[in-house]
Amino acid sequence: MSKSTDELFKNVISHAKEYGFVFPSSEIYDGLSAVYDYGQNGAELKNNIKTYWWKAMVQMNENIVGIDSAIFMHPKIWKASGHVDGFSDPMIDNKDSKKRYRADQLLEDKIAKYDSEGKTDKAEQLQHDMDEALKAEDLPRLRDLIIEHEIACPVSGTRNWTEVRQFNLMFSTQMGAVADDADTIYLRPETAQGIFVNYLNVQKSGRMKIPFGIAQIGKAFRNEVIARQFIIRMREFEQMEMQFFVRPGTQKEWFDKWKEARLKWHLALGTNEAKYRYHEHTKLAHYADAAYDIEFEFPFGFKEVEGIHSRTNFDLSQHEKFSGKKMQYFDPEVDPETGKPYGNYVPYVIETSIGLDRMFLLTMINAYEEEDLSTDEKQDSRTVLRLHPCLAPVKAAIFPLTKKDGLPEKAREIMDKLKIDFNIQYEEKDAIGKRYRRQDAIGTPFCITVDHQTLEDNTVTIRHRDSMAQERVAADQLDKIIGDLVSWRNVLS
Amino acid sequence: MSKSTDELFKNVISHAKEYGFVFPSSEIYDGLSAVYDYGQNGAELKNNIKTYWWKAMVQMNENIVGIDSAIFMHPKIWKASGHVDGFSDPMIDNKDSKKRYRADQLLEDKIAKYDSEGKTDKAEQLQHDMDEALKAEDLPRLRDLIIEHEIACPVSGTRNWTEVRQFNLMFSTQMGAVADDADTIYLRPETAQGIFVNYLNVQKSGRMKIPFGIAQIGKAFRNEVIARQFIIRMREFEQMEMQFFVRPGTQKEWFDKWKEARLKWHLALGTNEAKYRYHEHTKLAHYADAAYDIEFEFPFGFKEVEGIHSRTNFDLSQHEKFSGKKMQYFDPEVDPETGKPYGNYVPYVIETSIGLDRMFLLTMINAYEEEDLSTDEKQDSRTVLRLHPCLAPVKAAIFPLTKKDGLPEKAREIMDKLKIDFNIQYEEKDAIGKRYRRQDAIGTPFCITVDHQTLEDNTVTIRHRDSMAQERVAADQLDKIIGDLVSWRNVLS
Repeated sequence: MSKSTDELFKNVISHAKEYGFVFPSSEIYDGLSAVYDYGQNGAELKNNIKTYWWKAMVQMNENIVGIDSAIFMHPKIWKASGHVDGFSDPMIDNKDSKKRYRADQLLEDKIAKYDSEGKTDKAEQLQHDMDEALKAEDLPRLRDLIIEHEIACPVSGTRNWTEVRQFNLMFSTQMGAVADDADTIYLRPETAQGIFVNYLNVQKSGRMKIPFGIAQIGKAFRNEVIARQFIIRMREFEQMEMQFFVRPGTQKEWFDKWKEARLKWHLALGTNEAKYRYHEHTKLAHYADAAYDIEFEFPFGFKEVEGIHSRTNFDLSQHEKFSGKKMQYFDPEVDPETGKPYGNYVPYVIETSIGLDRMFLLTMINAYEEEDLSTDEKQDSRTVLRLHPCLAPVKAAIFPLTKKDGLPEKAREIMDKLKIDFNIQYEEKDAIGKRYRRQDAIGTPFCITVDHQTLEDNTVTIRHRDSMAQERVAADQLDKIIGDLVSWRNVLS
Repeated sequence: MSKSTDELFKNVISHAKEYGFVFPSSEIYDGLSAVYDYGQNGAELKNNIKTYWWKAMVQMNENIVGIDSAIFMHPKIWKASGHVDGFSDPMIDNKDSKKRYRADQLLEDKIAKYDSEGKTDKAEQLQHDMDEALKAEDLPRLRDLIIEHEIACPVSGTRNWTEVRQFNLMFSTQMGAVADDADTIYLRPETAQGIFVNYLNVQKSGRMKIPFGIAQIGKAFRNEVIARQFIIRMREFEQMEMQFFVRPGTQKEWFDKWKEARLKWHLALGTNEAKYRYHEHTKLAHYADAAYDIEFEFPFGFKEVEGIHSRTNFDLSQHEKFSGKKMQYFDPEVDPETGKPYGNYVPYVIETSIGLDRMFLLTMINAYEEEDLSTDEKQDSRTVLRLHPCLAPVKAAIFPLTKKDGLPEKAREIMDKLKIDFNIQYEEKDAIGKRYRRQDAIGTPFCITVDHQTLEDNTVTIRHRDSMAQERVAADQLDKIIGDLVSWRNVLS
């Protein structure tokens, strides 16, 4: 990445910490690798992103409901889903340094090295060989490539390697205190399975008719070997997933609909369309018959933010097999071709899966601006988060011009009327200009100043974050002015 | 518990499943002990309880902010907090059956047996001896009591017991793939520590001045030996905790304020005050100088729902000791006694900690009613959830009287105007009366029927859940009618 985008990313990370959006976890204990905490403004922003997604998916769609399933699930579920056997990375240890590496990562680094040395033929050949070995899950072949290309351990400098072994990415723990009954269970690596195993409970108790969807927001955990890039790849992260159950044969049509609908959701926030693109998967997962990513251009390049996957009936069929319970839906609708009801079948599934933390970072990066406000007379600048008002952590800040003459009391009186509906911040310290800058830095759309005139005619100054324009309005109108700008109606339709 | 309350509890559990509030987790795999999933109505109800708490604590209080810290934390944190060494239950194994039991539970069962046999003297003596042994953490003495009172294993029937050992309630897992760098970490057993270790990050980035609070909602995990009573004691559960940082010496005053404020929060939902009581802790935890529970009368008796604890400066001091980082706050306010600023100190902490799942169950039980509607002419009844409208999962249901004549289209047109602001359900199947009953069962405050007259004058019938009264209103007024009843203003002040 170029120097300036590299710097932008660093600045966003330090801004996120300085203004209470994201803190490194357990920082006073020197941190816990690839785990982060959301601070007071981050928690609000994250909650607002969740609300936007939940409203768009659940509340706006008559045939979608939301659930909240537990992180702990029966271990057989991960056998059925393929995660126990297949959810792993190929690892190799150096016998001298005792360090462990992802075999494919060592090869990737070598390819990059060949490239940087102008050895493009070698780079291409190795890329090809590695892809073949990964596709065939040929672990000895991966090791042979490491040996052939004389890859040494960055720590010991030796080429004294172990075999390549698969390392499962699921975190495991022991449940139950009873000695002969303690089970190894896993922290879910995806929220989707919580939907699949509950689909008939939801369908029956909610009287859902196909096509219908089940949505869920929740934590998932992956023991990533190399976790990096701030909150892009974390070991504990949050997903917003929706599984849409359809009649077999109609999956292509629904896949296309959701692919389009999900990009529309992103763009409704006003993000520059050029920052987004679709990426079609050519190598499909074993359960999929089509898959697209929605990618966003981060400072370090395009990265997946959301996946839309046509998962076929793989998961439900696997659960039918492993649980011994029927996972079929009875479809009473009449097939025009046969003149009979469609009857019993295992539905096909379209999944939309978005990484909440990535969406959070996307939102921060997209909103962050270091704005030059210099004039001929003086140099000036501000850092402003141009967050969509619906997502802004604080909707309005209220300032008494001074700390006396009853202005704080009046300001709090106005605040008290607004605070049930909106997250409002009160600030009385420092000059108004300085207070404006602090609110700009956390993306507050409105600053309201209470001055001596307010005591006379109940008007206040309202200052807009983006234009920095100020206007005088009646205090009674604030409710409506703020309400109109931060209304979900602006992004939902 | 009496026959009828026992039955009530059973009925609530089956109602919760039948109507999509709570499902046993992994049910198709015969369940996972003491883990539950929230269904489509449960997820909405739970979210509404969270919103009520967050608004009351964070949005309404100028000096309280909310964060969202990770479940994974640095393992030293649990050493500092005392959980690694002290968070455990005394366990004993029967050598023949290989079954493991909580030693105190075996003794409790024996005490209950003595009581039921009228041997109250023996019961009281054993209770006293056990309390003494537990207080002194005298594990051999606990074993002696089991032997003395001839307690046999319920499975093998023998009295062939091992020693009593402490069993830690924290779930552990391994983080990091790198062989020589994998750490044993714990799933947090409480959310509070995530607040303590972040308190200076929040205070500085948020420019908070004492007294101030930090709130958080999140999952916690405890490997309970005996998990039971539906969602009352689960191995995975959710907490809503607020830590309030105060100047040393003022903790009593703030403790009293929060004790009162928190009960007020419960009662604002309209729950019968007689169902609540305070319970003062006489045996205080090592970190506390005062503690009260707010208890609710469940069908199986009074149980803690929320705790208010004066935690002193124990946690912050421990983190100062274990992390080597200063945990002091600089208080610029002038002490009237000395005429100098209070200066640096480690704040004292008042905690309010509520179990979200218990609050959920409380809400369900309190709302559940099997109402007799019989008249002289015919027998009739309904099951109705008298949920506070603010908490109801669905705010209004909209019914076309019939499936033809354009009524469904008109009903959907009305729904489309309401659904951005409210969670609305559309239903067209079965007679209106049957549809009313289904909505009563999930606690929907309003049912709106669209009939032929609607097409002429744009009026609809609105039917109220509690009174079952119906009235004819203009469709344009629905927004306001629903909005007024479900407004958070009704419970926040």
